[in-house]
Amino acid sequence: MKTVYLAGPEVFLPDAIAVGAAKKDICARHGLTGLFPLDNVLDLAGLSPPEAGRAIFRANIALMRAADMVIANLTPFRGPGCDPGTAFEVGFMHALGKPVFAYANTALGHADRVAAFCGGTLERRADGRLIDREGLEVEDFGLIDNLMLDGAALDSGGFVSGPVDPTRRFTDLSLFMRCVEMAADAGQPR
Amino acid sequence: MKTVYLAGPEVFLPDAIAVGAAKKDICARHGLTGLFPLDNVLDLAGLSPPEAGRAIFRANIALMRAADMVIANLTPFRGPGCDPGTAFEVGFMHALGKPVFAYANTALGHADRVAAFCGGTLERRADGRLIDREGLEVEDFGLIDNLMLDGAALDSGGFVSGPVDPTRRFTDLSLFMRCVEMAADAGQPR
Repeated sequence: MKTVYLAGPEVFLPDAIAVGAAKKDICARHGLTGLFPLDNVLDLAGLSPPEAGRAIFRANIALMRAADMVIANLTPFRGPGCDPGTAFEVGFMHALGKPVFAYANTALGHADRVAAFCGGTLERRADGRLIDREGLEVEDFGLIDNLMLDGAALDSGGFVSGPVDPTRRFTDLSLFMRCVEMAADAGQPR
Repeated sequence: MKTVYLAGPEVFLPDAIAVGAAKKDICARHGLTGLFPLDNVLDLAGLSPPEAGRAIFRANIALMRAADMVIANLTPFRGPGCDPGTAFEVGFMHALGKPVFAYANTALGHADRVAAFCGGTLERRADGRLIDREGLEVEDFGLIDNLMLDGAALDSGGFVSGPVDPTRRFTDLSLFMRCVEMAADAGQPR
């Protein structure tokens, strides 16, 4: 059975274990084994906080190496972009040649989310470039997030996005389910 | 001569080419060849915006594959965390076993930056967990950014952070220079 690393900021939810279990159930119903970061049972007793963080890092790395592919939740997290830890994991899996499936629970594309983050004050320069309030260019390729994330997902698996009830943006699993369907199809023997 | 991929959000600066040239000069003075994403000369004529974004993605991937190591600017970018595109690149290089050197121009650690982003309103639960205004846990390991980023840098290269003049947080190269020194030392034949 193919294994799927379940990347995303739901590890930070109060009911993270339950959300991970729900994702794994959906995977199982599609013939896939989901690997959730909190599956790692670590003995962190006696470790300093930074040592504990690094132990979790190494366990997540081992879980990714054991997985055949990744489904990443790239829903915007504390700002207009996705969780940097999840972005790291997408890059890691892509480098290993493992398919990346991604979803983002958001109605807006990257540039529109940056505009909202800046209070709507993006500037369109004469040369066509889109600039934020700090003078930094805003990627304007009609993509969902930074082009490295869209690029990896589109070149190897897929990337879906769409609006959900804002209060459920970290827990709504409908687009996750779409990714599982894509991943299950990709995992079939040809 | 060892090559270093120069990852970071300075590609979005109005003077990105000049900042890239300054970084490459510092590398050269330490016996390293810096590879900057904007070194890629791409013919994007006739491509749709998403196709152009994906062409840039593929060129960046090729540049990373050509590099021996990465120096990543993880200065907070549009929120409390680093640029997700840079985080992707750190994960990519770490998976390939290439050393990661990172810097962040910020006086605050991860948890304090999330607190500032939330207007100072983090909650400490009875079980010791730190929670943001959306009910999401805040990593509290005394690290600089998400533990995946700190973990990769600390396990393979190094991670330095510190305050700079806020108006120069994307252009101040003093911590970048520290990374170049570390990378040059790591690149020496033993």
